[in-house]
Amino acid sequence: MKKNISILGSTGSVGRNTLEIIENFPESFQVWGLAAHKNIDLLEKQIKKFKPRIASLSDPALAGQLKERCRGYDVEILSGEAGAVRVATIPEVDLVVSAMVGAAGLIPTFAAISHGKDIALANKETLVTAGEIITHEARRKDVRIVPVDSEHSAILQAMQGHDPSTVKCLILTASGGPFKNHSLSELQNVTLEEALQHPTWNMGQKITIDSATLMNKGLEVIEARWLFDIPLSRIKIVIHPQSIVHSMVEYIDGSIIAQLGIPDMKIPISYALAYPERLPLNLPSLELTKLGNLSFQEPDFDRFPCLRYAYQAGEEGGSLPIVVNASNEVAVEFFLKRKIRFMDIQTTIGRVMEEHTPRKVSAIEEVLEIDQWARRAAEKVINHER
Amino acid sequence: MKKNISILGSTGSVGRNTLEIIENFPESFQVWGLAAHKNIDLLEKQIKKFKPRIASLSDPALAGQLKERCRGYDVEILSGEAGAVRVATIPEVDLVVSAMVGAAGLIPTFAAISHGKDIALANKETLVTAGEIITHEARRKDVRIVPVDSEHSAILQAMQGHDPSTVKCLILTASGGPFKNHSLSELQNVTLEEALQHPTWNMGQKITIDSATLMNKGLEVIEARWLFDIPLSRIKIVIHPQSIVHSMVEYIDGSIIAQLGIPDMKIPISYALAYPERLPLNLPSLELTKLGNLSFQEPDFDRFPCLRYAYQAGEEGGSLPIVVNASNEVAVEFFLKRKIRFMDIQTTIGRVMEEHTPRKVSAIEEVLEIDQWARRAAEKVINHER
Repeated sequence: MKKNISILGSTGSVGRNTLEIIENFPESFQVWGLAAHKNIDLLEKQIKKFKPRIASLSDPALAGQLKERCRGYDVEILSGEAGAVRVATIPEVDLVVSAMVGAAGLIPTFAAISHGKDIALANKETLVTAGEIITHEARRKDVRIVPVDSEHSAILQAMQGHDPSTVKCLILTASGGPFKNHSLSELQNVTLEEALQHPTWNMGQKITIDSATLMNKGLEVIEARWLFDIPLSRIKIVIHPQSIVHSMVEYIDGSIIAQLGIPDMKIPISYALAYPERLPLNLPSLELTKLGNLSFQEPDFDRFPCLRYAYQAGEEGGSLPIVVNASNEVAVEFFLKRKIRFMDIQTTIGRVMEEHTPRKVSAIEEVLEIDQWARRAAEKVINHER
Repeated sequence: MKKNISILGSTGSVGRNTLEIIENFPESFQVWGLAAHKNIDLLEKQIKKFKPRIASLSDPALAGQLKERCRGYDVEILSGEAGAVRVATIPEVDLVVSAMVGAAGLIPTFAAISHGKDIALANKETLVTAGEIITHEARRKDVRIVPVDSEHSAILQAMQGHDPSTVKCLILTASGGPFKNHSLSELQNVTLEEALQHPTWNMGQKITIDSATLMNKGLEVIEARWLFDIPLSRIKIVIHPQSIVHSMVEYIDGSIIAQLGIPDMKIPISYALAYPERLPLNLPSLELTKLGNLSFQEPDFDRFPCLRYAYQAGEEGGSLPIVVNASNEVAVEFFLKRKIRFMDIQTTIGRVMEEHTPRKVSAIEEVLEIDQWARRAAEKVINHER
């Protein structure tokens, strides 16, 4: 039986890889909905190739143009958040790939869960900012949230078939980013170009900067807490510069189960699409004997304070992870525009955290409110410092 | 509910480790039978501590002494192959730990399977020499054979919960032994003492020499073929000098699942005892960040021809694996007595293989006949060469 799929963020890196896999397994998957931000040209091509019933763009004006271009195709073109929600909740759809960037993914992903759709989750912010609400709703609707991130996919694979009560700890691997061996003073002077040179993975700009600050790993720790229902005190990070071991699980008998592979997002994406099965991907094998050495180091919370902020936020829970995530998004945006320096990213987050009084959060609307507050606070901090 | 256990080879390294685990989990396991070769002192202690119903020694005279020493204990003392078979087939027993050294384990292990007992298998020869007969009988009796070897335990753990039809290949790791970097001419001159220095595992003498010739890994390949029902062409070996990754499974999507841990036999033994559960062992954690590098190399079939012989025997099947195993046992015995040199081990095996006309094997008795023929042939080869 075919799985019916909607993709939120179909023109991004995860979305494109997802469609490439679907193209290779037409007997297994059918595209029903596509939502994108503003890449109208690519979305048009995707519509004409995959023939979804509904497609949506963020901007209404662009959606109008797209409607013109798709005249004669049997597709409903929508726009805005409401459009993305419609894509996420098409009655026939079984699985929604949640791959929008940032907080924009939260509402449509929540809507998909409320409508009983399984989720292939690439959008980190969903669980980082609303982990408790989302996982509660997923349990209520008996919905499966399967991670697309290579680290969480590795952990899922390493827990598959093993009794979760025998897990001792999760070990998330981190490449360490381009600055893993930089001293604190060297970190003061790194450029945007250097920060955008990820040593092992080819990804979008935002996540590449998050990898350089290690905030990406911090957010993944919070995400893992919700995905696998394990307290943060039992989630560890090790720096593994080669990005071959994608993550590990240690059990109570001292056994560690690890998932390894070439750094290609198609592996975790296909696993999330076909879960619990696997697709025969035509990728080159990992040549263990040609790899060189694999190494593991302790992460340095002093040189990479974003890690400390993320653990603190994850342990506190409630509103604090929202604040960390939103202030980080704003700071990275300013860094990408060359308006602040690399180390200002973590300073900004730290300042906004200090200004914030943590509280409990019980509805998606509150998440968005706190998110907005933190964004304004981060902008204020940045403008004040400049 | 307690598992009732018999141990074949209770005074050997695996047997002692098994009893140590059972001692720590008295609510999970009960010892019903113990069989040993000739270590009467240790078996006496084990009887008095674990209070089995039946115990057996190979030698009838020693068994007579043991009976004297255990006067007043409610234990039946037996001897010889018949004694071991009785230990293996006690009606109340659920699981038989098959940990005798060499061909002696075959008859009692087969008897245990025929009586419907699950097997924790440490005795390599059982599957190497009689894989087809044993696995056929195990299927017929719906008996589970769980490996105790660290490599096969790793593969079992890495396949647990994953669809076996999605396995692309098994990757057995090998430490490479003490001579992994020796040239062919250096190998001519290695001493017994050097061969007994295993770099990472502390094991018995026979298996330590087999690790130095890599015959141990060759036999494991044949064993894996039967345990996991995978053809030899899809079983690979990689040299991994650190013995941290105990083995791996590659899937059709390019994912590799690996099991890692400190090199302590208690981990795979406890997994086989508690399978599919895990026991909370009080072992030190594997400190990934203190390990140094992990590396992987191709095995060299020219410097270690035992590997080639084992693959050839495994692919041919029938009588050939029996011949390889028996001639290896004889040759290693002579090497341990300093009567032949290290490289004579493989020469002997090669000669006996040449002399042998492979044939099908369909009964345990035939296995033993061919085993005896190969032993005599190996002795002749050795005596002729000297």
